[in-house]
Formats: sequence, structure tokens, C-alpha cells
Amino acid sequence: MEGSQRFGVRGDSPGHAGIGGTFAGRRLVLDAEGLEGVDVAVVGAPFDDGTSNRPGARFGPRAIRAADDGGHAGRPHLGTGLDPFAVFEVIDHGDCTVAPADLERSHEHLADVLRSVLAAGAVPLVLGGDHSLSLPTLRVLSERYGRDGYAVVHFDTHADTAAELYGVRISHGTPFRVAVEEGYLDGRRAVQIGLRGTWPGPDDFTWMREAGFRWHTMDEIEERGLHRVLDDAIAHVAGAAPRVYLTVDVDVLDPAFAPGTGTPEPGGLSTRELRGALRRVASELEICAADVVEVCPPFDVAGITALAAERIALDILTGMASRRASSSAGRR
Amino acid sequence: MEGSQRFGVRGDSPGHAGIGGTFAGRRLVLDAEGLEGVDVAVVGAPFDDGTSNRPGARFGPRAIRAADDGGHAGRPHLGTGLDPFAVFEVIDHGDCTVAPADLERSHEHLADVLRSVLAAGAVPLVLGGDHSLSLPTLRVLSERYGRDGYAVVHFDTHADTAAELYGVRISHGTPFRVAVEEGYLDGRRAVQIGLRGTWPGPDDFTWMREAGFRWHTMDEIEERGLHRVLDDAIAHVAGAAPRVYLTVDVDVLDPAFAPGTGTPEPGGLSTRELRGALRRVASELEICAADVVEVCPPFDVAGITALAAERIALDILTGMASRRASSSAGRR
Amino acid sequence: MEGSQRFGVRGDSPGHAGIGGTFAGRRLVLDAEGLEGVDVAVVGAPFDDGTSNRPGARFGPRAIRAADDGGHAGRPHLGTGLDPFAVFEVIDHGDCTVAPADLERSHEHLADVLRSVLAAGAVPLVLGGDHSLSLPTLRVLSERYGRDGYAVVHFDTHADTAAELYGVRISHGTPFRVAVEEGYLDGRRAVQIGLRGTWPGPDDFTWMREAGFRWHTMDEIEERGLHRVLDDAIAHVAGAAPRVYLTVDVDVLDPAFAPGTGTPEPGGLSTRELRGALRRVASELEICAADVVEVCPPFDVAGITALAAERIALDILTGMASRRASSSAGRR
Amino acid sequence: MEGSQRFGVRGDSPGHAGIGGTFAGRRLVLDAEGLEGVDVAVVGAPFDDGTSNRPGARFGPRAIRAADDGGHAGRPHLGTGLDPFAVFEVIDHGDCTVAPADLERSHEHLADVLRSVLAAGAVPLVLGGDHSLSLPTLRVLSERYGRDGYAVVHFDTHADTAAELYGVRISHGTPFRVAVEEGYLDGRRAVQIGLRGTWPGPDDFTWMREAGFRWHTMDEIEERGLHRVLDDAIAHVAGAAPRVYLTVDVDVLDPAFAPGTGTPEPGGLSTRELRGALRRVASELEICAADVVEVCPPFDVAGITALAAERIALDILTGMASRRASSSAGRR
Amino acid sequence: MEGSQRFGVRGDSPGHAGIGGTFAGRRLVLDAEGLEGVDVAVVGAPFDDGTSNRPGARFGPRAIRAADDGGHAGRPHLGTGLDPFAVFEVIDHGDCTVAPADLERSHEHLADVLRSVLAAGAVPLVLGGDHSLSLPTLRVLSERYGRDGYAVVHFDTHADTAAELYGVRISHGTPFRVAVEEGYLDGRRAVQIGLRGTWPGPDDFTWMREAGFRWHTMDEIEERGLHRVLDDAIAHVAGAAPRVYLTVDVDVLDPAFAPGTGTPEPGGLSTRELRGALRRVASELEICAADVVEVCPPFDVAGITALAAERIALDILTGMASRRASSSAGRR
Amino acid sequence: MEGSQRFGVRGDSPGHAGIGGTFAGRRLVLDAEGLEGVDVAVVGAPFDDGTSNRPGARFGPRAIRAADDGGHAGRPHLGTGLDPFAVFEVIDHGDCTVAPADLERSHEHLADVLRSVLAAGAVPLVLGGDHSLSLPTLRVLSERYGRDGYAVVHFDTHADTAAELYGVRISHGTPFRVAVEEGYLDGRRAVQIGLRGTWPGPDDFTWMREAGFRWHTMDEIEERGLHRVLDDAIAHVAGAAPRVYLTVDVDVLDPAFAPGTGTPEPGGLSTRELRGALRRVASELEICAADVVEVCPPFDVAGITALAAERIALDILTGMASRRASSSAGRR
Repeated sequence: MEGSQRFGVRGDSPGHAGIGGTFAGRRLVLDAEGLEGVDVAVVGAPFDDGTSNRPGARFGPRAIRAADDGGHAGRPHLGTGLDPFAVFEVIDHGDCTVAPADLERSHEHLADVLRSVLAAGAVPLVLGGDHSLSLPTLRVLSERYGRDGYAVVHFDTHADTAAELYGVRISHGTPFRVAVEEGYLDGRRAVQIGLRGTWPGPDDFTWMREAGFRWHTMDEIEERGLHRVLDDAIAHVAGAAPRVYLTVDVDVLDPAFAPGTGTPEPGGLSTRELRGALRRVASELEICAADVVEVCPPFDVAGITALAAERIALDILTGMASRRASSSAGRR
Repeated sequence: MEGSQRFGVRGDSPGHAGIGGTFAGRRLVLDAEGLEGVDVAVVGAPFDDGTSNRPGARFGPRAIRAADDGGHAGRPHLGTGLDPFAVFEVIDHGDCTVAPADLERSHEHLADVLRSVLAAGAVPLVLGGDHSLSLPTLRVLSERYGRDGYAVVHFDTHADTAAELYGVRISHGTPFRVAVEEGYLDGRRAVQIGLRGTWPGPDDFTWMREAGFRWHTMDEIEERGLHRVLDDAIAHVAGAAPRVYLTVDVDVLDPAFAPGTGTPEPGGLSTRELRGALRRVASELEICAADVVEVCPPFDVAGITALAAERIALDILTGMASRRASSSAGRR
Repeated sequence: MEGSQRFGVRGDSPGHAGIGGTFAGRRLVLDAEGLEGVDVAVVGAPFDDGTSNRPGARFGPRAIRAADDGGHAGRPHLGTGLDPFAVFEVIDHGDCTVAPADLERSHEHLADVLRSVLAAGAVPLVLGGDHSLSLPTLRVLSERYGRDGYAVVHFDTHADTAAELYGVRISHGTPFRVAVEEGYLDGRRAVQIGLRGTWPGPDDFTWMREAGFRWHTMDEIEERGLHRVLDDAIAHVAGAAPRVYLTVDVDVLDPAFAPGTGTPEPGGLSTRELRGALRRVASELEICAADVVEVCPPFDVAGITALAAERIALDILTGMASRRASSSAGRR
Repeated sequence: MEGSQRFGVRGDSPGHAGIGGTFAGRRLVLDAEGLEGVDVAVVGAPFDDGTSNRPGARFGPRAIRAADDGGHAGRPHLGTGLDPFAVFEVIDHGDCTVAPADLERSHEHLADVLRSVLAAGAVPLVLGGDHSLSLPTLRVLSERYGRDGYAVVHFDTHADTAAELYGVRISHGTPFRVAVEEGYLDGRRAVQIGLRGTWPGPDDFTWMREAGFRWHTMDEIEERGLHRVLDDAIAHVAGAAPRVYLTVDVDVLDPAFAPGTGTPEPGGLSTRELRGALRRVASELEICAADVVEVCPPFDVAGITALAAERIALDILTGMASRRASSSAGRR
Repeated sequence: MEGSQRFGVRGDSPGHAGIGGTFAGRRLVLDAEGLEGVDVAVVGAPFDDGTSNRPGARFGPRAIRAADDGGHAGRPHLGTGLDPFAVFEVIDHGDCTVAPADLERSHEHLADVLRSVLAAGAVPLVLGGDHSLSLPTLRVLSERYGRDGYAVVHFDTHADTAAELYGVRISHGTPFRVAVEEGYLDGRRAVQIGLRGTWPGPDDFTWMREAGFRWHTMDEIEERGLHRVLDDAIAHVAGAAPRVYLTVDVDVLDPAFAPGTGTPEPGGLSTRELRGALRRVASELEICAADVVEVCPPFDVAGITALAAERIALDILTGMASRRASSSAGRR
Repeated sequence: MEGSQRFGVRGDSPGHAGIGGTFAGRRLVLDAEGLEGVDVAVVGAPFDDGTSNRPGARFGPRAIRAADDGGHAGRPHLGTGLDPFAVFEVIDHGDCTVAPADLERSHEHLADVLRSVLAAGAVPLVLGGDHSLSLPTLRVLSERYGRDGYAVVHFDTHADTAAELYGVRISHGTPFRVAVEEGYLDGRRAVQIGLRGTWPGPDDFTWMREAGFRWHTMDEIEERGLHRVLDDAIAHVAGAAPRVYLTVDVDVLDPAFAPGTGTPEPGGLSTRELRGALRRVASELEICAADVVEVCPPFDVAGITALAAERIALDILTGMASRRASSSAGRR
């Protein structure tokens, strides 16, 4: 199929026409067979049953897709002219099945979809949904690449390494802890960027230290500068594993830039900083899976958080494309 | 055809899953050839360039479709058990092409779609968009049935019979005037229900009187009761032509029930009244075309106006189905 | 001046053009001398320092004026064709001076304006602002007509007859109590319509009973019907004094119809009921002063409360006009 | 304790002062021992993990309590002067423990609280939370009174009798089905009022019919009048059991009156109708448990839904008080 | 001229009093004759018929004027003490006539007003309205100064140089392309600042390059710093023509700072950066016309976008005043 | 007392459970006797009668407390691990009594509470409410420490040193002027940070200069950098008095970060800058009183302003704790 795919649209109509559009107008491919030759498969995970505070991230995937306002086929980055869709075959793989009020079943459904994406050799780019989705993602990555075959770069306000949240083990506040304890992830291969606030408490940080996690707080970013911090984070991860799962909780942004999220925390990154950082990370590391999570439309204003998330996803693709482009160039 | 059609959905997932859904989950049919055997074709008209006050009805068709929260195939009316989708083949025919900033071109595009729907023997059910869309609709109806071959039942706050609005001829305030003056419509076959406010002025009512229009104000409804007024309206129209174009401006509802519209006017119908009235009208008259217009999502709250519009469209279908069901029964 | 007066507007432009408009496009007359020959003077009272709960009614007068969407000169009631501006000379007399954080000074300013309106023989139609404005209004009316020269018809959820509110004497919860105790008003000439909720308490109702107030609750309206209640209210007041101050707290409407107010109470009138009731009251009684108060735009949605208030003010004028018209007819 | 109980408040301050207030300022009693002599215990159930569409009802209990704007001790119904707090000892029993992302555990916690309330001889008045809370409520009622010892009066848009929702058994769409199938409830003792829309489907209604449920649709209410319908419903239930569980889903109101709910459906009751109906039901039947559920603040506007819910809870208490008052009078 | 000019205001009242105010309280002058001696004439352009995505900029001019909260006469910049109204005679020239649904007619009306402003030797400062208004502005500037007599400094996310948008030639996405092709503008005299996102596509940038446009992306600003970029932009333009048209699309701001616009794009300037940049540009270049466009109030939150736009307009005036002040100083 | 104190909560429930919580879950202590041994007493001042523009700050204290989303006892700063509640005994002292519509009485009530806090040797941390609360604060501080015994560090957009506002002396625009003129404050001991906009006018700045005030505008911060400016401000104040009143008007933040305030001004600090600045100020100076004012929830979006204010208050405590911790360390 050729470029833009919005449903129920005729002719050359603007983005608000039609029943709805795929991610950035990419071809919709639901069947596993259709994944052959695909480089990146966008997958929605419209559940939020793991949320402890403001729910609503179940509406995230559709809002992120709807934030695309373009009618043309490409998405060339203005600064570089690089169009990820000219470099990669990116398709929209639809949403995983969800079972409201049964988080574990939704996790299973997502895991199934991710398995078939990875089996096809494609990179899944997941649109959340709450951050508990990292747990099935990590499980599937460890199945495919081995626990030590991948590293994690994690942009977030919160470490999400609690042992439990209000007595609940599977939650959006625990995926990286559970994944380590279940043997899906080695903490020494994980780096977190943007932490701030007062959660989790000292015990959890002690556990993280012992588990080998590295993290960079907003205080450190403020003091040393974002790019110095990225230097360290990228160097650490590059040495830890041949490929990287890049997970972005939209609440790493300051609430001014991303009000539509479940657990905002003032004092975060600007979209300008984050977009640049993600293009850099994705161009300097080999991304094997990525996601943008915790977009919560009921608390959004003027759609700016969903819009930021869509652009963030494009930035990850643009970074990946520039890596591919330069490596192709290098090969020549 | 297997019932629900939402895009990018897997398994038995709730309404918020996937990229977006067709009207009430009906099959999407974009090509004219696919219209064979179709009874009703839902068509979106996502333009609002004819709006004089609050714009935004361009986002109406998608919001109306998204208001559907069901995952099952049927939409049986709870009171009667009658499911219009068991009686009729209803499909979603997508949106007409739109050209932002060029209203006449959008009108042409809509007219083209309507022509092919009527040619296939199906009833178009248009989701607006601003009320200027009645102008191409009336033109196409007169082409197909002759000026005297159809009547109009028009629920609205405003008569929309101004000669011009701020000097502009083609606007959402003028379609029924222009249609008469262009020979598409005979005012003696039109009845308006729900008028209130102070617009248009006495000259326009004088013109309407001379052109043969009938109208029933909210004052009359308040005094005589809605069903007495409907008795008169239905009787008038039933005698005027063999078929009826039913056009519903959502602002006929009180702003409490439909805040998301461009030119609200306090003192209107409740949704309970309107829903019952439309089921009645559609069951007692032969509908050849229908629409629900002026849903303006940027001014909506909690999506209640779009929801009302979706239910209104279902009520029209339910009324039509009960007419068909009883006429089938009668024939037996 | 000829009809519409909006500032900074050129040509035949819609309501959103220009710097802002007067009430229903009436001529702006700020000086007392300009009041000669004026029948009704609209006056804004943009203060809310008397509010005990949600503040914001200070933005009411401008929002009410801005709710007018028309560009033409007249405002003919659609049901009757009667245009109050063809019957009366109605002007916009601007806002009284206000002193934020000094309620008594704002009251003095309003009283000054009302005195000069009454001195010119005109009827003031005040746009609030919080209901404490009834206190200066009652004072000025008693100065002009004597305590026993006028009656009060009061549409409201709340009796506003508390002896004090949180220890404060001059407040939006006390004007009718203070006015009686200061000798501006005789409770036997006051009737209240629409009361509901649980405020004020039994002591205040005991005081009201002793002071001679009459009131009709929503329960009574629900049981007997609105028009029966109006029969009684109008008959009582008609016998009590030759002229009537009609004061309408927009919270007499159900919150569905008027969310934008400071102390909403579920279970109120619909706009359809209230608009008809006010046209009736104003056509059957001789109005010497009127107001619409407690429109609180920061809590409004889609502007529907301000819109309702503007239409309510027009309904009062329409009722007055129909009284004048029929009395003129009678004289002939 | 003497009347109003808000925390962190000094002196005679308005409702917005302090840290927060109990339901209608009632005494807070958390321990089971404190329930001695209590007639009604208000209990919050701040979870929404059973929600299939718009989540957010977890914020309902606090919003309902915060909707109380009064500073005085009593809540005398204005129409009758009857103050439920003068008749009954009503206390606020706080919220049950909740475990986000673990609905069954939250259900257990609620059941524990309800057991101790019933054991103390008090009537629980639960503030929801999603409607799945009826499942633990029905279980506990059957434990205490036997399956046949109580009946149900259920105001709702939706029957909530699905066998499962998107494959999930414990959900806000299934409690009355599961309760029958688990033996907590006999459908022949349940009556539903206000049903409308297109959910659930014919199979579920067939099941309901066979299980003995009765229901009254909005269509029936529109046709026969609300009070005729209540006559039938009350008569049926009065003959079925000596006591009644009254459960009110706020979505029985039209979305105009209750936009802040998870699954709104146009065409419902007005608050005026519902408030009167509940006072009647609670005065004519012996209430042994009651709740108001599905208030979803993130979708509310100007707080009108939470306000309606608080008033609804007061109306239930007022109805119960008038029953008690007249039975006391009768005894004398 | 006595300072503040708000209509319907008495005494020393705050900004919310009265019917509405002119831009920063300046004198309203509608007639061309009144322009004698005027330095800057503020003109509203309340149309948005050229919008392809979110409409509503028609409400921009009034919202921008209403954002002024001051009651005093001057607007001295706090940093420098410089008051543009002490340096320049600035008046509010009202809005141009607008014809909803007829963009070209509105363009003609705006062109007429601009011609008479320029003829009077004044600088027009236009408040939009959608960015299509640059087309009549460029036409009128070329009439007055010749195509080569002026340059353009353009702050925007989007280049607005598409050949057409959805098949439409006159649109908010095309003014600078059409102006070049119609001979009103020489691309070699235009510089754009703040571009980002993925629109327009490579072909349009190729055309721009050939037409001589220069542009500075947000990526460049991030890398080199805003002031270095301004050095280059100012130097280029200063050498290109003796005077400059400064056009500011408010979407050059990040959506966090300007959510109320039609086509937001994350990653933009902060208000702090933009305000300083505009003061600098206007003080270092000779401004012959300026505008602030694309303020879309229906999507604004808490009025912050309109407020930013008003301050931006004041910053342009402050920059111009400091240029005048220093050149006067120089002359002495 | 054991950590978290929320009312009506059972077990380990999330922040949305229960009736409401104290500031950061601190123990509620209303009586003066309970202040013994307390280091910091949080006091709410829920009045806004001193507001000249957008009212609503009366709802600030509750919203700030409700912004706390944690369930655990401590609030360790993530960067440093320092938990102010481990260093200090911080309690919530509830709200002062407020008298709506009587600002001076509310001021007296606040003064009484502050006197008893200071008498107990505790530091008051006031949550506003409008900025007029600085007047009673300054009066009480001068009573306790003498006019020359304390200095002021004031973060704000506005100098709040007007002689009167619209003729009113006691207002949120005048506290620092009135305090100097009444002898509570010596201007030479006050420094203001973040000023911008065009208010107040040159006369007020002249007065400030003569009174000895220092101030740092946003222009200066932009030019020199925030930390250089803080160097100067801290040095000046450190030399002026042994202790400091730190007052933070939330409008010093850019409206993007704090839309929910009464008089926003574009071009302010980010939360990241302000949070760091306050931690620094509070760790380098001896704080004897502090407040965060002008949080106006009716204009907030997604609660981000209240959230910012709560974090700001925690930052002040964290700064104070780090000072105490290092001085304890020093002593050892």
C-alpha cells in the first residue's frame, strides 16, 4: 500500500476527515503474515488497569494516532530532511486485544503480539497504555534475546521499581522490579533518565543500587547538562548489550508540556529537550523495541500531550533512520 | 459481513480499542459498486466553512462515530427490541472529500457521493458538518425525485431561510432559501419544528409564509404539547409528497443537552423528547434522506452532544425499521 | 443612534467582530442626561465580593453582553413577532464603577447609577454580579417609591434571607433580610419562586413567615405545576403594590441549564420553563426594576449560562413590551 | 459529636475551608465499635477497576463529599422541613481500603466494612466507585438476610446483567447476573427503572426474564408517567421482601444532568424527577442498604454530577426519615 | 486623549468592568481621517476561513484585546521603563469587515483598511485571524513600497509556502508562496525563524531555496543559540531592504506556552525567548507592518495564549519604541 | 504520630482514598498547645477577597493539599535523599477561620494563628489564598522580631507595592507598600525576584527605590542567569537581618507552568528553575516564615498549578532541612 492510510477518506482531504487514521498514515497490517519485510510495527496497548492514580491511559493509543494532522505520505524531519518512512517499512499493527478489568489477560495479549513482531524481525513501537506494559515487553525481549541480550534506556519521572504498590504486585509502579525478580532483566543493563520527586522511597533505591541500575535525576541534568548525562547513559548501555529497549514515560516531561498523564511531577524536561534526546539515543544505539506510555487524554488540554507523544514516536523513528542511513553510508 | 467493523482491533475488545470505528460498527464501503443491496448509507460531511459563529463542526462526523461505545453487532432498541441492523443493510460510506476553505467544492464532493447513494436505491444518512450541507442534499434530491417528489421535515432552532448572511449567499443560514430560489425545493412541502430565538427577522418569515413553509415554534410545542404538533406536521407532509428528507440540526436541543454546537439557543427540546419524536417521524413517513448536523466538538462537554447525535441517528434508523417491519407484517 | 452598537466594527460583520458589544446591540449611553426618553436602561454590576462559595460573577455582565450573537437591530420574539426594541427605547448604560475588595463601595456606586435611572423615569435592568446587589437596589427603590410602593418577585434556589453568613452581614445570602430590617422592604410584598435544597435553616424560614414573605418551592411546582404557582404569585403581588421589582438568580435553573453559577442546586427549572414564566410575569405585572444575577463564567461550559441569562433579560423585556403593546391597544 | 465535622477548620468558616469534610458534615467513625447506636453509615468505595469505558469513578466518593457546601449541622428538606439528621444518627464511616489494579481485593475490603455495618444494625449508604460494588453488597446482604430476605430497587440506564464483559466475569456490567448465579440474589425480587439504549442484547434480556427480573424502560416512563411506574415497582418489591437494597447508578440521569459518568446515555431522567422518585421509594419501602455509583469526576463539568449524587444520597436519607417519622407518629 | 479607553466603564474600575476594551486601552479610531499623526494602528482581522485544521482564530482579536488587564494609561516595560505609548501615538483601528464563508472578501476588506493605514504613514499591527491574512498584507505592502522595498521576518513553526493545501490555493498554508508567485514578495528578502515538524515536504523546501528564502529551524536554534540565529537573520534582512514586515504565528511557541492555536507543534520557543527576540528584532530593524496570528481561543486554556499574544504585540511596540528613542537620542 | 494522616482512610490505600489529607500527610494539630516541639506549622489561608482580577484562590489551600499523591510517610528529595520530615517536626495546623466578604476579619484570623505559631517557636508555612495575606504576616513578624529583625525574599511577577488598587488600600496588590507605611517592614530588607510585565507604574518603582527595595527582573535573570541573580539577592538579604520571610507568588512561574493563578504574565520561570532556586534560598538563609500564594484552581488545568505549589512548599522544607542538616553536621 502506498503511504497514507486513513479509513473512510476520499480524495485529498485533511486529517480530520474519515473514520480515523493509522499511526502517521502507515499501512494497517493486522495479520502476522503481513509482517514480512516490515522494519517497525506500531502496536497500541489501550489498557490502564495498572494505574494507581489518574486512570485514562486506555484512551492513549487512539489519541496519539489522531494527533497526526498530515495528509501526505512522508514525515521528513525538517532539520535533516530525513524521512523515516523512506528508510524503513513502518506499519501500524493495530491494538492488542484488551480485557478491561483483567490486566494480566491484557498483558498476555500484548505479549502475543510482541512475540510475533519480534519473530518477524521487526521492531515493536508500542503506544500505551500504562507503564505496566513494560513487564510483558521485558518478558518477551528476554525470551527472544536472552536476559543479557538487551539493555534498557528508560526516560521517566518515576523509577517504577517498587516491590508492590498498595499491596499489588502487577502495577504501573513495579514493572522493572518484577522483571528483575522474574529473571527477565538484569538491572546492570538498565539506565533511567529524568527521575525526580519523592517516589519511590530509599529502600527501593537501595534495591536498585544493589540490582545494578543506574539513574540520572533531573537535578543532575540541571547541573551537568542533558547532553553530558546522555553521554554517560549511552556509553553505559552501549557497553552492556548489543541492543536496546527504549521506554519513554511521557511524564518525564514537565506537566506544562504533558498535563495529560496520570502522575505528573513538576520540574521535568521540555519537549524540545526530550525530542532531541530521543533522536540522539535512537541514532547512537540499536533499538530493538520502544514505547511511549502513560498518555492520559481525559486530563490532557488541547491535545498537547498526545501530540507530544506522537512526535516523540516519530523522533525515535527518525533517530533509528539516521542510524540506518549513516550505517548504510558507512558500508558503501 | 460479520457485524462490528472497527479498524486495528483484535479479539473482543471494548469501544476505545483500535484506530477508530465506523458508524455503529457497520461495514465500511467506499466504492459505489459496493452499494448494491444497501438500504442506508451513512456519509460523513466533515466541513464547517459555512459557519457564521462558532466553527468546529468539521470534527462532527468523527466524534459522532466515536461516540459509539458498543462492541456487539446489533443495536436493538431496548423499548421495542427492534434492531435496525437486523431489518436493514446499513453501511458506512465514509466521508465525502473536503476542501478546507472552499465550501462550494466540498458541496460538490458531497453531492457526488449522494448521487451515487441515491442511484443505488439507498437512503443517505449524513453526519455533519454545518447545515449548509442541506443545499447540495436538496439539489440532489430534486434531481432524483423532482422538486415536487419529496417533502422536508426539519428540526431546528433556526429557519435557515435567510437570503444571505453577512453578505454571503452560501452559508449555514441560507440553504432552504437558496434551494427554493434555485428551484430545488417547494416551500409548501417543508415543515420546521422547534424554532425559537430572534433570528431570522420578520422579513424572512414573510418570505417563508409566501413560499408556503410551515413551522412550529417551541412556544407552540410548550403550549400544545409535542405530540399534537407532530400530528400536524406529519399529516401535512404525508399529504405533500411520497417521501421525506428528515434534517435534524442538533441545536434544536436545549444547550443543556447539546452544548457542543455552533449557535445554541436556550429553551429547546430535551433528548428524550427529540429521540421519541424522531422515531415517530421516521416510522410514520417514508424517509428518503436524513442528516444530523452542527455537532461542534470543540464546544462539547464530556462528549454528550456527539453522543446525542449518534443516538439520534440510530433513532432515525429505528423508526425507519419499525415502519419497514410493520409494512412487512402488513403485507403478510 | 440606529440599532446595533458594537465597537470597533466595520460593515455588516458577525457578532464576534469588534471590540465588544452593548447589551443586544443597544446604544451606549453613559451620562445621566442621555437617559431622557429612555424606557429601560441596562446596567452592569461586575462585582462578586459578596460571594460565599464559588466566585467569578464579576465576569458576568461582560459574558452576558457577549452572548448576543446577532448583527441586526431588532430582537423580535419568534413566537409573537413582538420586538421589545420597537416598543421601548432600551439603552445600555454601561457598568457601575466597581471597587474590588470593597463591596460596600461598589454598592454605593450601583445605587448612584440606579438613582439616576429611576429619576429619569426609566426601568433599570441590572446584569450581575452577585445577588448582594439586591440590597442597594431595594434601598433605592424604597427611596423612590416608598417601602410600600413596590413588591418583589424573586426567582431563586435560595431565599437569601439569612441574618448573616459566616458572621458577615452584607453578603449575597442576606439582601432580603437586611432590606427588611433596614426598612427598605416589607416582606408581605415579596414572593419567592423555585426554592429548594437545605438552606437556609428553619429559623430563617420562621423569620420569613413572621415577616410576611411568601414562597413557592420546586416541590410545590412539581406537584401543582408551574403555571398554577405563577397564578398565585402574580395575584399576591398584583394586590400588594402597583409595581414590581423582578429579580432572577440564574441558579433557579437546574445546574444542567446553568452550570456557570456560584451555588448550584440540582432539581431546578429548565430554561424553557423559566423563559416562559418570565415573559408571563413581566407581561402581567408592572416592572419597575429587574435583574439577572449570579452568572459565574469561570464555571460555565460552552457559555450556556451566560447565553441563558441574556435570553432571560430579553424575555423580561419581551414580557414588558407585550404588556405595553396590549395596554396601548386597550387605550385605543 | 456536635454536628458538622470538617477537618482542619476553625470557627464558622464556609465549605471550602479546611482539609475536607465528611459526608454532609457528619461525625467520622472509623472503628466498628463506634457504630453502636448508628442508624446509617456512609461508606466510600473509591475504586473503578470494574469499568469498561471511561474510568475515573475512583474519585467519586471524595467529590461527592466535597459537593456539600454547607457549614451548618442540619440538612432540613426545604419542602417538608424534615431533617434526616434530626431523625437518624448518620455517621461517615470513611472509605473502604482499596487496592488499585486488584478489583477482587477491593471487593473483599468493601464486604468487610459492610458486614460490620450490618452487624451493628445500621444501614450502609455507599458512595461509589463503579457499579461492580453491587456484587459484594449483594453477597453481604444475602449473608445477613438470606437470599430471599431482601429485594432490590435499581435505578440505571443499564441492566448490568451481562454474563461477562469482554470476556471478564467481575465487571461493572455483570454484578446482578453474577449475584443471581452465585445465589446471592433472586431475580424475582429485583426491579430496574430507567433502562434505555441498546445494551445489553436480547439474550441477556431473555435471561433476565427467565430469572424473574422486572424492568421499566424510559420509553415506558415517557408513556405512562414516572409515578405510575413507581406505583408498580414499589408494589412489586413491597410484596417480595421485607426490606430493600436501593442502588442508584447516576447514569440513569440524562447526560445533561450527569455528564460526569462512565457510560452516559441520552434520554434519561432529570434530577428533579430522580430526586422526587428516590424520596418516594425510600419513604414507602424499608431500606436496608443503598448506594449512589458511577460518579466519574474527570468527565464532570462544574461539579454538577457530584453535586447531584450528594443530593441524591440526602434524598434517600430524607425519604427514610419521613418513613421513620410517620411510623413513629403512627405508633403514638 | 485621556489614556484608557474601555467602553461602558465608569470611574477607576478594573479590567473586567465594561463592555470591552481596545488594544491596551488605546483610543478607538475607526475613520481614516482620524489616522493623521498616528504612528501605529492596531487592526483586528477576525476571520479563520483559511484554516485547514482547528478553526477558531476568528475569536482571536477580541480575546487578545480582552487579555489586557490594566486600568492605567501606560505600558512601561519593566526592564527598561520604556513606555511605547509615551513614544508613539498608537490607536486601535477596530476590526476589518469580515464575511464568514467568503475568505477572499474578508481579504479585500483587510487590504482596504491596511491601505488607508499605510497611506496615513502609520504602521499597521494586525491581530489575527488565520495566517492567510499575510497575503493581503504582502499585496498592500508591495503596492506601497514596491516588491523590493521591504523584507519579511517571519516567526513560525510552518513555512506557509505550500503551492496549495488540499487543492485550495488561498489558505493559511500558502500566503508566502502565492505572494511570491503573484509578484508581491521577493523570497530573497524573507527569513523564517522557528521552523520544525514535518511540513511542508521537500518539494516546497526546494522551491523555497530556489526562491531565495532563508530559514532557521528549531534544531539550529537549539544548537547555535537563539541570539546567534537572530544575528544572522537580522543581518540578512537589514541588508535586503530598508523596512521590514514582522509576522508572528503564535504557534512558533511550544504548545505548552500557546495551546490555543490551530496547528500546534511540540518543541517550540518559550514565551521568554520569543518576547525577548521580538523586542530585539523590532529595535534593530525598521518595522513597517507587523502581526500576531493564529490565536485560537476555543482551544486555549486559562486564556494563556491570548495573553501571550497581547504581550507579544506590546513587545513589538516596545522594541520599535526603543529604536525610536535611541534614534532620537542619536539625533540630539 | 505515625506518618501519614488522611481522614476516613483504611489500610494501605492510594492518595485518592478518604475524605482528604493534610499537607503531605502530616499530623493535624489544631490547638495551640499541640505546637510544642513543632518546627514548621502549615497553615491554610482560604480567602481571596483581596483579588482584583480572577478570583478563586480561596480554593487554593485544599487543592494544594490534595495534590499530594503519596501514601507513604516520608518525602525524601530524590536528588539528595534528604527527607525534611526526618529532620523537622512538620504539622498541618489547618486553615485559619475565614469570613467571606470581610477581608480584614480574615486577616485578623490569620494573624491570630500566625502569632501562636511564632510564639511556639515554629515556622509558619502558609498556603494561600491571595497575596494580601502578606500584610497580616508582615505585621505579626514585626511584632515578634521587630521591624528590623527580619528580611523578605519575594518571588513574584508583580511588586505588590501599589499605594492602592482601584481606590482600595487593602488588596493583593498593596501588601508590601502598606506594610512599609504602617511600619511593619523596612524596604531596605526586601528583595524581589522575577518581576516582569507593565505593572506597577513608574511612580511605584520610584517609591520602591526610595524605600530601599531591591528587585531583579526576568530580563535581568535572562541576561545574567538565575544563579548570579540569586547570589546577589541572598547576599543582600543575608547581610540585612538574621532571618527571612520567604514569600512565593505562584505567578512568578510562566503561565505554561502555572495557568491556575489570578494574574498570569507570560515570560516567567519554569518550575525546574523555581524549585531549585527555592531549595537554594531556603538552605542558605534562615527562614522564619514562608508562603506559597495565588493558586487559583478554577483556572487551573489538570491540577498542574496546585501540584507545582505543593512541590514548591516541599522544596522550601527540603532547603530548610538541608540547612539544618549541614548545621547539625557542622556542630558535631
